[in-house]
Amino acid sequence: MAEKEEALSLHSKKPGKISVEPSIDISTRKDLELVYTPGVAEPCRKISEDEEKAYDYTSKGNLVAVVSDGSSVLGLGDIGAEAAMPVMEGKANLMKKFGGVDGFPICINADSAEDIIEHVEREAPTFGAVNLEDIKAPRCFKAEEELKEKLDIPVFHDDQHGTAIVVGAALRNALELADKDLEDSRIVISGAGAAGIAVANFLLESGAENIVPADSSGILRTEDENSYKADLAERTLASEEEGDLEDAMENADVFIGLSAPGIVSQEMVGSMAQKPIVFALANPDPEIYPDEAKEAGAFITATGRSDFDNQVNNSLAFPGVFRGALDARTSEITEDMKIAASNVIKEFIDPEKDKIVPETLDKELAMEIADKVREEAD
Amino acid sequence: MAEKEEALSLHSKKPGKISVEPSIDISTRKDLELVYTPGVAEPCRKISEDEEKAYDYTSKGNLVAVVSDGSSVLGLGDIGAEAAMPVMEGKANLMKKFGGVDGFPICINADSAEDIIEHVEREAPTFGAVNLEDIKAPRCFKAEEELKEKLDIPVFHDDQHGTAIVVGAALRNALELADKDLEDSRIVISGAGAAGIAVANFLLESGAENIVPADSSGILRTEDENSYKADLAERTLASEEEGDLEDAMENADVFIGLSAPGIVSQEMVGSMAQKPIVFALANPDPEIYPDEAKEAGAFITATGRSDFDNQVNNSLAFPGVFRGALDARTSEITEDMKIAASNVIKEFIDPEKDKIVPETLDKELAMEIADKVREEAD
Repeated sequence: MAEKEEALSLHSKKPGKISVEPSIDISTRKDLELVYTPGVAEPCRKISEDEEKAYDYTSKGNLVAVVSDGSSVLGLGDIGAEAAMPVMEGKANLMKKFGGVDGFPICINADSAEDIIEHVEREAPTFGAVNLEDIKAPRCFKAEEELKEKLDIPVFHDDQHGTAIVVGAALRNALELADKDLEDSRIVISGAGAAGIAVANFLLESGAENIVPADSSGILRTEDENSYKADLAERTLASEEEGDLEDAMENADVFIGLSAPGIVSQEMVGSMAQKPIVFALANPDPEIYPDEAKEAGAFITATGRSDFDNQVNNSLAFPGVFRGALDARTSEITEDMKIAASNVIKEFIDPEKDKIVPETLDKELAMEIADKVREEAD
Repeated sequence: MAEKEEALSLHSKKPGKISVEPSIDISTRKDLELVYTPGVAEPCRKISEDEEKAYDYTSKGNLVAVVSDGSSVLGLGDIGAEAAMPVMEGKANLMKKFGGVDGFPICINADSAEDIIEHVEREAPTFGAVNLEDIKAPRCFKAEEELKEKLDIPVFHDDQHGTAIVVGAALRNALELADKDLEDSRIVISGAGAAGIAVANFLLESGAENIVPADSSGILRTEDENSYKADLAERTLASEEEGDLEDAMENADVFIGLSAPGIVSQEMVGSMAQKPIVFALANPDPEIYPDEAKEAGAFITATGRSDFDNQVNNSLAFPGVFRGALDARTSEITEDMKIAASNVIKEFIDPEKDKIVPETLDKELAMEIADKVREEAD
């Protein structure tokens, strides 16, 4: 409770977690003539002749819209646009702090993927890239897919790909410590929302062959009416197995939770294979707390929180990913860029059981990721 | 030419004229726990229970969207969203510098008032107020009217009301020096776009009785198919007169140009009444340059530019108006607030012929305007 009060008190500070500052100082009449009328007309003219000049004469090239409809915020669900603001501001804050990126929260009232697509498309002239955030599935998939096609700036749904990049890095380090390999490990992924599906896809691409995806109804079914879930089931062990999460976890080497608080019991951890790896990433409250999981035999644990060991948090990836993408002025963030980013995170440390991912507050990491993302863009 | 190059060079500085900065520093793991996960969940929860709490726990209350579709930028016309960015960034810069307001450019692709309305309505959760800017008439009128009705945050089309506030103040000081009064003066307003119509309305409200509004076709007609123009004609001398701008200016005490470069000749200024007041406010190139106007007999001149005397520029008003409105958390910027702001600007100086408005770079002015706007809100 004390922490909640402390968080509220910190969030009450004015003006908030971000501020918009003049980066050119206007102190003399001459400054005003150049930055405002009449001088400002000249860059306007140049850009009207060639839109690309916006990158030369405006802030566009370093601005990232952090867009959310508030339909799936942390573990809190569909709490609406206003209530999503603290998260989007937090991301904007971290983007600048670690990536030198000018993120800005864009919290919108939207009822569908179409609303989001239309909104972001209209506003794209302002920004150099788009970070979609905390949008519920399957809305987020459609929004991202279509926006990637429509826009010539990168669109990156961080809950999907940021999570996948970091989970991928953390998992490979954890498996190394457990002396297991990705191909042979049985990996249960609980949660078939944006993050769950993206993590499954990323691990499949990385070589995992025994993934068991599950949602609140149990192991996914190939006949699920949600086409994203059905499709994932088709490409994983879910096409051969059925049962609930408890069944799925039996003899699993890895549990990755991107689902709901408290749904994993100590018994379930106890039923896993030897040296079980338990990533309980639901935010703010994990599927099982690390101390309980360890008591039940977990070899390595991770959560999404900064107050336990091994914080598997997107903030390890997104500042560097956007820094690199903006620097390269790439029109999209490709699979190769994501894999490069994941490799940087994995290799950044010598893994130990309580340190399978780098510290979230390391600026060097973001810069290394940016370098590799830029290299992939060349 | 040298100035254009200088302006371009200044606009080439990275990252641009604004940057988004962290206003809470995240340096320790504890900071991260409070500002990001898990701490951020608590303000999210509070806001989801009561949207008003967004003012307590986010930047919303100090954020102003500076929204443009780029359909009427400076005197450059419909140059599009990207090309509007330098102006919107400039406004955001000035808002912070003089009003402590966190303005942010929102440049959008829009084809109609409806597009703008829908866009701003969706995004309203993010902001404490909306500054509409450089949107062509009559699109801007409809957009502003409907948004004012739909939203519970202030919506202020600065080209209309900011201009009217400052022109009103400047004109009353100029008339004082010319020993004329507002009621009896013949006032020609050239330009029936957003600014022209708003200035006419504001002067009518302030007591002017002999206004002659004109557009590029001459004195407005009560049967104009543009209902805003027809309506204004009805309420002014345009209901009794006809002719071109040249006819309108004969014996006029005041010319206020919010129209197009170079359309006023020295002969036209010569045909005005004694001690003619010439506000040639087209940007960046005025209807007639001040030196030419003076040569032709102008008693007092003003332009919209910072490189001549008497800059009648919105930047005198908007930082203070938004500061006051945000502080009061008013749901709209009322006529009384605008009049109060105009009075502050008028009274802020002892007028002289080359100084009918305060310096644009005076921070005290914005704070005095903010005080008076706040008082009106009480």
